[in-house]
Amino acid sequence: MTIADYVKSHLHTDEPLPFPTQVVLLKKGSEITTVGQIEQRVYFLQRGMTEASIIKDDDHERIVDFFFDHNFFSSYTSFITQQPSNVRITCLTDCQLEIIERADLLHAYGTSLLANRLGRYITEQAYMAKTQREKDFLTKTAEQRYLDLIHNRADIIHQIPIHKIAKYLGIHPESLSRLRKSIIS
Amino acid sequence: MTIADYVKSHLHTDEPLPFPTQVVLLKKGSEITTVGQIEQRVYFLQRGMTEASIIKDDDHERIVDFFFDHNFFSSYTSFITQQPSNVRITCLTDCQLEIIERADLLHAYGTSLLANRLGRYITEQAYMAKTQREKDFLTKTAEQRYLDLIHNRADIIHQIPIHKIAKYLGIHPESLSRLRKSIIS
Repeated sequence: MTIADYVKSHLHTDEPLPFPTQVVLLKKGSEITTVGQIEQRVYFLQRGMTEASIIKDDDHERIVDFFFDHNFFSSYTSFITQQPSNVRITCLTDCQLEIIERADLLHAYGTSLLANRLGRYITEQAYMAKTQREKDFLTKTAEQRYLDLIHNRADIIHQIPIHKIAKYLGIHPESLSRLRKSIIS
Repeated sequence: MTIADYVKSHLHTDEPLPFPTQVVLLKKGSEITTVGQIEQRVYFLQRGMTEASIIKDDDHERIVDFFFDHNFFSSYTSFITQQPSNVRITCLTDCQLEIIERADLLHAYGTSLLANRLGRYITEQAYMAKTQREKDFLTKTAEQRYLDLIHNRADIIHQIPIHKIAKYLGIHPESLSRLRKSIIS
């Protein structure tokens, strides 16, 4: 799926994209955005899987998001504010990405209703995902959040190494191992 | 400050608002949005303070957000998806609100660049606030988050009852009391 396909299916229009895009292929392990970099792009994952992570004060990594086929992603706070990114985005598999340059998007925002509709739509989706995650942190135990992940993302959970899932849940890998054993038994 | 003033100062345009608004006064303790309601409005706080809360499985309340003068707020996931709200929004003080009806906003989104720019801008701000809170949950202790709150919101923290701050931090009021004592000593 391309960004044009996404626009057609989610915004119900055949209007051509109001900005140029380019497609790149990246190998598993490639860093897309580094910590400290000022984000200048929005990415659409045509194929593959990426992760966004942050580093805790104690040097431990935490994963804030996984992205899959047909997701938009970016170090979006950095993209909006043009402050250095505090997340790192990495390819978990070989990836095929479609890229929108910030300058092109801002230019389109100035005149194109479609660009603004798309920007608002994607931002709404990102907002709702973050809100859900906040509610989960406030109201659910790590065990409940793990069970939700198994339930909601059964198709992809097996592709993610277990130590990365622990970093996403915000718990130690040993705690997650104990959790898995108690669920299985 | 009105929504028109907000648009002028944040979006740098004198264009008139592309939707009607109405101003209402509500007493302290009034419920603006109830759990289970489908949100049909976006609110701008001309004056006052509100809170958004959710109920945990164990019947304990958690506060997801406080809103102050010149903030937009809404049960925004419900507003977008038109699913029942799982947050409740309440006036913590007497409030003067300016209201945009969803039907008016969606109508404006269909034709107005300014409506889409404003919708995108407000959603970006909401996204960034949620992202910051997610990072805080993943990387900071309750003590650090409390110190941040004192530091960043010194102007308003004293207006919020201490048991509400505990609900916002996701900890027991007793834990917050101990924390406050250890900080003071």
